[in-house]
Amino acid sequence: MLKKILIQPDYILAWENENFKLVSFGEIIIEGDEITYLGPRREHNRKKFSKTIKGDLVMPGFVNTHTHAAMTLFRGYADDMPLLEWLGEKIWPAEAKLKKDDIYWGSMLAICEMIKGGTTCFADMYFHMEEVARACTEAGIRASLAQGLIGTDKLKGSISLKKNENLVRNWHKAGEGRITVMLGPHAPYTCPPEFLQKIMKTAEKLEVPIHIHLAETRKEIEESLQTYGKTPIKFVDDLGLFEHNILAAHCVHLSREEIDILAEKKVAIAHNPGSNLKLGSGIAPLADLLEKELLVSLGTDGAASNNNLDMVEEMRLASLLPKGLKENATIAPAEIALKLATINGPKALFLDETVGPLKKGAKADLIVVQLKKPHLFPLHDVVAHLVYSAAASDVDLVMVNGKILMEKRELLTVDEEKILFETQKRATKLLAGLN
Amino acid sequence: MLKKILIQPDYILAWENENFKLVSFGEIIIEGDEITYLGPRREHNRKKFSKTIKGDLVMPGFVNTHTHAAMTLFRGYADDMPLLEWLGEKIWPAEAKLKKDDIYWGSMLAICEMIKGGTTCFADMYFHMEEVARACTEAGIRASLAQGLIGTDKLKGSISLKKNENLVRNWHKAGEGRITVMLGPHAPYTCPPEFLQKIMKTAEKLEVPIHIHLAETRKEIEESLQTYGKTPIKFVDDLGLFEHNILAAHCVHLSREEIDILAEKKVAIAHNPGSNLKLGSGIAPLADLLEKELLVSLGTDGAASNNNLDMVEEMRLASLLPKGLKENATIAPAEIALKLATINGPKALFLDETVGPLKKGAKADLIVVQLKKPHLFPLHDVVAHLVYSAAASDVDLVMVNGKILMEKRELLTVDEEKILFETQKRATKLLAGLN
Repeated sequence: MLKKILIQPDYILAWENENFKLVSFGEIIIEGDEITYLGPRREHNRKKFSKTIKGDLVMPGFVNTHTHAAMTLFRGYADDMPLLEWLGEKIWPAEAKLKKDDIYWGSMLAICEMIKGGTTCFADMYFHMEEVARACTEAGIRASLAQGLIGTDKLKGSISLKKNENLVRNWHKAGEGRITVMLGPHAPYTCPPEFLQKIMKTAEKLEVPIHIHLAETRKEIEESLQTYGKTPIKFVDDLGLFEHNILAAHCVHLSREEIDILAEKKVAIAHNPGSNLKLGSGIAPLADLLEKELLVSLGTDGAASNNNLDMVEEMRLASLLPKGLKENATIAPAEIALKLATINGPKALFLDETVGPLKKGAKADLIVVQLKKPHLFPLHDVVAHLVYSAAASDVDLVMVNGKILMEKRELLTVDEEKILFETQKRATKLLAGLN
Repeated sequence: MLKKILIQPDYILAWENENFKLVSFGEIIIEGDEITYLGPRREHNRKKFSKTIKGDLVMPGFVNTHTHAAMTLFRGYADDMPLLEWLGEKIWPAEAKLKKDDIYWGSMLAICEMIKGGTTCFADMYFHMEEVARACTEAGIRASLAQGLIGTDKLKGSISLKKNENLVRNWHKAGEGRITVMLGPHAPYTCPPEFLQKIMKTAEKLEVPIHIHLAETRKEIEESLQTYGKTPIKFVDDLGLFEHNILAAHCVHLSREEIDILAEKKVAIAHNPGSNLKLGSGIAPLADLLEKELLVSLGTDGAASNNNLDMVEEMRLASLLPKGLKENATIAPAEIALKLATINGPKALFLDETVGPLKKGAKADLIVVQLKKPHLFPLHDVVAHLVYSAAASDVDLVMVNGKILMEKRELLTVDEEKILFETQKRATKLLAGLN
């Protein structure tokens, strides 16, 4: 018989007519991996449930649609440097030393941090991705994984693409369906047109989406104009990339025309406000993207450029930045920001038939948030508090696919202490000898 | 005999040649309210100490140089609205209903939150300030308090100024010296020139500094140009305000010339990046202020416009915003941001002879931060981690004036549960009937 879990919190952030709806004194029942009831609270024979959970607020988990999980190993290793210098002088030499096991442990550290901050699903683009898949399977988190593909060297590009194909074959829909796979062309400036075309053909053949960095820095735009006589967005659009299912990370430097292209072609965007600020890349035009009703989700990017994987922080930044930039306090209000951080994520990862708003029939990816804390008092508006006042550490319980991964802030599926020990040891060794 | 406390943490963020210096395996001794030793770790007879504290990192507490503490009561009550509409339609009608006891409890809630986030000292400008002073005295936090002075009604202005004078007489240097008082003219647009002059005379007579809002919104600049033919900065400078010790909050909209004036007149600035974003006021030109070597400190502003009193968040915003805005990752590096949030605060509050960097002879205002958490691993760079990765909830212990206010995240001087209960009750009652 399927395990049945009953949740009876003070509030449920439910969903009605494409909007959040706060339900007081409701309840949720989970059978196996699925929500089978969400509605008014009822009397029950508690013996029918393997577990009963109380709590202040139940809501959908955060979905981090762009990160490089194992880069946690480089957190704080190289800061206050511009993107290309940071990559060339610090990150690439360090990455060249990464072994399979490092990727496993670095990803595990990221997963620890993400679960502790209420992230139930993330999209990763890196290498040795079968190690990331293994970590996700063990930890119980949901993930959309892509091999980072760089085609400047043709042979290496082919090998990587083959690895990405194998990742699809071996891991797509693995881990009780929690793992899905995309193809991961790194960026137009690292993937020549022929390589991108090959990737598109593979995506079509394997029926998987594509995750790519686009229009991150001004320098990228300038170089694309020099090389191809067009911007990265125009370049990949002309190549036919946007005929596929695309998750485009960053999209910081966009013209009005390019925003229209992204809207028309229904490109999903992973907005990474923290990383874009920290690397001096710029500030994406979120107000314009929202106005054009683009599908915007939120990502933390890797922990070497953020420097954490805190989705509450990204949600707040996403909401605050356009207000300040445009000097208009009404842009990106709390409810919109909360959508970006939660239910827009699964849409951007093409997982919205599986997870998203809390409702009957959806897989049970949810979190319980503590509201009885000084910084969340008094409680006038739950959604405003989540976006403008809350912290990642207010998350008390995390459930993915019906399984509890954290309870009372204790991680249940991974050994946190061992992960901290292993990552410190490996990072110290990796970076010894590098400048 | 004075109580002696020994702290032996893994790291101490000490101070040498005007810079932070990370000391490994050092120790701090506190006798009464003062640091009497900071240096290499030694052998001790533990019986000589009333308490021994271990921990990961000891550092100076955060200093929040601009807030309106009791506005916690309105947290989440009115969001996503522009400043003047927010004030006129929501905040002022609600404030009109505030009673003395509300101010006490609202301030207590703020103090709870601030202590829990590692803030050891704050500057407040509001009303019924003797209630705030009472709350600070009980809670043990350090504070610089000012009565908010509005002079558009002459009689009310005089009464307020009298209250501020009484606040100086009754509370300046009270609470074992933890409470100091400033005069609090609200802003040039609410204080006519004659009133400002009267305030300046009073400041001179009582020998106290002045805390004022300056150049917060574009509208304020435009109205000042219309009314006085000059910007707020030029207007108050011509009046002679900057000949006094001034703490100027916000300073968002500044010309090059005005920045030079502020620099020349050594005006201390309370930069409030979060509130300025959220109210759509704009983004202060921090890069320029740093370039001109102005004394910049950080404030959260009130919890109705922030919506929390989290100094770690302000510190991170202060560091990230100019990088993104100027597309230059080298601006406001971690160490500078940490200075803004810690040791620049006491300077801006004219308290730097009392507190600031951790060193022998300073009053013991310090915090212990936990570093053994996934989001702070691996530990390559403590300062970078504090600014780019840490969270307010990583603060484990808070000491002000040698007294422990929080230990293992438990508040020791105030009754947290009662404060949450009282503030929820009062806020609900206050806002009932308002739209």
